Amino acid sequence: MKRTLGELAALLQGEVKGPPDLVIEGIAAIEDAGPREITFITQKRFARLASRSQAGAFIVAPGLADLARPLIIVPNPYLAYARVAALFAPVPRRRPGVSELACLGRDLTLGRDVSIGPLACIGDRVRLDDGVTVMPGCFLGDGVHLGAGTLIYPNVTILERCRLGRNCIIHSGTVIGADGFGFIPTPAGNEKIPQLGTVVIDDEVEIGANCAIDRGALGETRIGRGVKIDNLVHLAHNVQVGEHSLLVAQVGVSGSTRLGQRVILAGQVGLAGHLELGDGVRVGAQSGVNHSVAAGQDVSGSPAFAHKEWLRSMGQIPKLPDLYRRLKRLEQQVAELSASADEEPET
Amino acid sequence: MKRTLGELAALLQGEVKGPPDLVIEGIAAIEDAGPREITFITQKRFARLASRSQAGAFIVAPGLADLARPLIIVPNPYLAYARVAALFAPVPRRRPGVSELACLGRDLTLGRDVSIGPLACIGDRVRLDDGVTVMPGCFLGDGVHLGAGTLIYPNVTILERCRLGRNCIIHSGTVIGADGFGFIPTPAGNEKIPQLGTVVIDDEVEIGANCAIDRGALGETRIGRGVKIDNLVHLAHNVQVGEHSLLVAQVGVSGSTRLGQRVILAGQVGLAGHLELGDGVRVGAQSGVNHSVAAGQDVSGSPAFAHKEWLRSMGQIPKLPDLYRRLKRLEQQVAELSASADEEPET
Amino acid sequence: MKRTLGELAALLQGEVKGPPDLVIEGIAAIEDAGPREITFITQKRFARLASRSQAGAFIVAPGLADLARPLIIVPNPYLAYARVAALFAPVPRRRPGVSELACLGRDLTLGRDVSIGPLACIGDRVRLDDGVTVMPGCFLGDGVHLGAGTLIYPNVTILERCRLGRNCIIHSGTVIGADGFGFIPTPAGNEKIPQLGTVVIDDEVEIGANCAIDRGALGETRIGRGVKIDNLVHLAHNVQVGEHSLLVAQVGVSGSTRLGQRVILAGQVGLAGHLELGDGVRVGAQSGVNHSVAAGQDVSGSPAFAHKEWLRSMGQIPKLPDLYRRLKRLEQQVAELSASADEEPET
Repeated sequence: MKRTLGELAALLQGEVKGPPDLVIEGIAAIEDAGPREITFITQKRFARLASRSQAGAFIVAPGLADLARPLIIVPNPYLAYARVAALFAPVPRRRPGVSELACLGRDLTLGRDVSIGPLACIGDRVRLDDGVTVMPGCFLGDGVHLGAGTLIYPNVTILERCRLGRNCIIHSGTVIGADGFGFIPTPAGNEKIPQLGTVVIDDEVEIGANCAIDRGALGETRIGRGVKIDNLVHLAHNVQVGEHSLLVAQVGVSGSTRLGQRVILAGQVGLAGHLELGDGVRVGAQSGVNHSVAAGQDVSGSPAFAHKEWLRSMGQIPKLPDLYRRLKRLEQQVAELSASADEEPET
Repeated sequence: MKRTLGELAALLQGEVKGPPDLVIEGIAAIEDAGPREITFITQKRFARLASRSQAGAFIVAPGLADLARPLIIVPNPYLAYARVAALFAPVPRRRPGVSELACLGRDLTLGRDVSIGPLACIGDRVRLDDGVTVMPGCFLGDGVHLGAGTLIYPNVTILERCRLGRNCIIHSGTVIGADGFGFIPTPAGNEKIPQLGTVVIDDEVEIGANCAIDRGALGETRIGRGVKIDNLVHLAHNVQVGEHSLLVAQVGVSGSTRLGQRVILAGQVGLAGHLELGDGVRVGAQSGVNHSVAAGQDVSGSPAFAHKEWLRSMGQIPKLPDLYRRLKRLEQQVAELSASADEEPET
Repeated sequence: MKRTLGELAALLQGEVKGPPDLVIEGIAAIEDAGPREITFITQKRFARLASRSQAGAFIVAPGLADLARPLIIVPNPYLAYARVAALFAPVPRRRPGVSELACLGRDLTLGRDVSIGPLACIGDRVRLDDGVTVMPGCFLGDGVHLGAGTLIYPNVTILERCRLGRNCIIHSGTVIGADGFGFIPTPAGNEKIPQLGTVVIDDEVEIGANCAIDRGALGETRIGRGVKIDNLVHLAHNVQVGEHSLLVAQVGVSGSTRLGQRVILAGQVGLAGHLELGDGVRVGAQSGVNHSVAAGQDVSGSPAFAHKEWLRSMGQIPKLPDLYRRLKRLEQQVAELSASADEEPET
């Protein structure tokens, strides 16, 4: 893949500075880029790295337009980087068609240009729309439906009746539709509550590696349009995640909790069950949320409260031994003052 | 599957109110249930939803016996729901017999009605008792033994010599019997301690998706009868979990720690190694336990202490900046008082 | 496998006490060992278990040389145990050669004595050096390279172009080279940043079960020589882990963070992105690190600070309600003192 600087600028709707016929063959980080690669500067403080960089050209914001190197000037260099990266990204290898080494159930409905890799196992009545890719080692249970363009990486498990929308990406090792964790303690032991529901995932959702998304006990676990989920995330039965939310790695969400749109859960956050987090809520890393949170709030801590207050409280934690010492000294001083005050009437 | 209200009441040993010949075809949540489905009310505060519900019938506690709808009245509606759900649950599809596309080792011992799915890989000297199901993509190492009725979902890995009891359920992606994390730091690097032990799992154990249960370094990692484990849980080498304990998602238990019976570890809890948690201990979500805990205690926090005290201490955390300000003001006031007290002798 | 006590002592360069021709057939923990097994005592306080032990012989430190049982006396009994365990460890079963039931790509480069199990799927241009073992159900993407002696357990996924060094061990369910979590929020949703990089793992690295090691966004995610990683660990894109570091179970490291050599991250630790942890840094269990840490420091807490100070602060947490009560009492006393001081001029 080769592009000229001018072609890239046109794609990015940016301004060229330097030779528009300069040939670019790839994109790389500023330290690693060579003369036939373009790089990008997202923050002014990284501009000092430019002089040492071997990069053939730079994508920069208008504030760096005076850099004496071949440039593409755009309002948002980070977004421009993402788009150039997409241009140079190697196309994930798809084996065209259905592998003879896949294991297929009955009554499949396959769209145009579906790819099923070897050693994948597809249940009965599965429907795969146009352009779906199922890579090797995947298991799709009976009645699973994948929307057009969806890509399932190797060794993913999607259990019966779960449905994914269009253009989803599911990374390796993830399990969608295992039973939720529902048991009733009885004197004889923990009695299993059968998990009869499903998982419904909307369009453009991406889920990282080795996640576990449980099916509903009754009804559905739902993930809204455009949600992006990192690795090793746990969503319990009947969780709902609103559109365009971001769940960072190792987050766990307990049963029936509902997230609004564009919620952000930072890494290792845990949410209790049956909560509601409003649109735009953000939860700080490692926080534990045990109450519902109104739209637009930022919370942190375990248990979590308002993020700004949490920051102030956390500033006090290292001072606690000092605070305790000072309290004891005060107690002694006050005792002495009280004693001498008591003596005074006698003088 | 169709049942009459009267048949369901007989099954539940409950009292019918309404037409006993009413036909019920499924169970659903109160918002979702239709006229041919039964639902249930577990808490009085949900009774207000009944008037809007389309459900054909309700499972309720005696306190709601005056609801003017077809009813089954039972002491524990939640348990009754579990039992009706079990009745209507779709039978997990088993491919009868051993798939021609499975890969089988030598000297297998297979009971009656064993099901081995396609693309499963079974080692030598594996023993599968009556009614065992091994779904596609699973790996069972040499000498693995699964007790009667045990169900292994797709893409599970059970390594050599591990043993599971009867009627266990292992969800997809879980790994049983990987090496424990044992290394000795030396000047040349970290020297591996070979992990020679196994994992022994008793009857009626359920383990969620993408868990990791390590084999013993020497001897066994043991999971007792009726234990239920949620997703993404880590049990290190030589851990012992007592009967009927519940481990919620993303828990991690370090090496050689022993849990008594009916212990409950809430989500994301971490336990240090070589601890003993007595029968009935409960640990709050995200807690980190670094000392043994006597039977019957509830602990929370990281590091953990008595749950009730933890609740009180956590109530103070948001007040810390205020507490600090008040301490400083007191110090100033006491300094002034001391100064004026010192002046007094001069008056 | 049978060895005499004398042969084992020679192997360990230790001193024999007792019959050098005593036959030893295995190693076990002190409670479990039988008369034909050797055991070991790593700490003096376990010596009291020796009298009840059935073990045929003991590996002990010089301080226990007076134990009246067959002994091998060595400076470091724990290390000696690891070495005897390695001697008695069952050789992991390798199917010699390439299974006819594996699925192979084109242009493979296979060294001598490579083992590829059934139902493994190998991409194009994969290179497996001498003695590599790929167990059943694994997926290796195009251009993957595994160094000599590396062992890949069942159901591992290694995606395109990732490279592992010599004598690595990767446990089941682990995913190496999934896309990093890179998105740019835009009004229309979260735009994916293509993840073009790879993962490069040096020699002698061991990675536990169900981990997720993401490929670089650009450039590489790197794991240095001799690093050992426990189960369910998440490494984000472009993380670097220095030689001989230890990452305990359920750790998460955010993007571009760099660890020096011999860093230790205890269980469930989370690190923010773009940090630098110097050589020998140790982070306590469940800590959350949001700033870089200089070499040799120990930190704990969430957010983390110096471990010793953290210990002192944590000691105060259970006392907070008492501290608050004492502060309120002081305020009242001081108010009374001030009031009486104000009255004094009138006397």
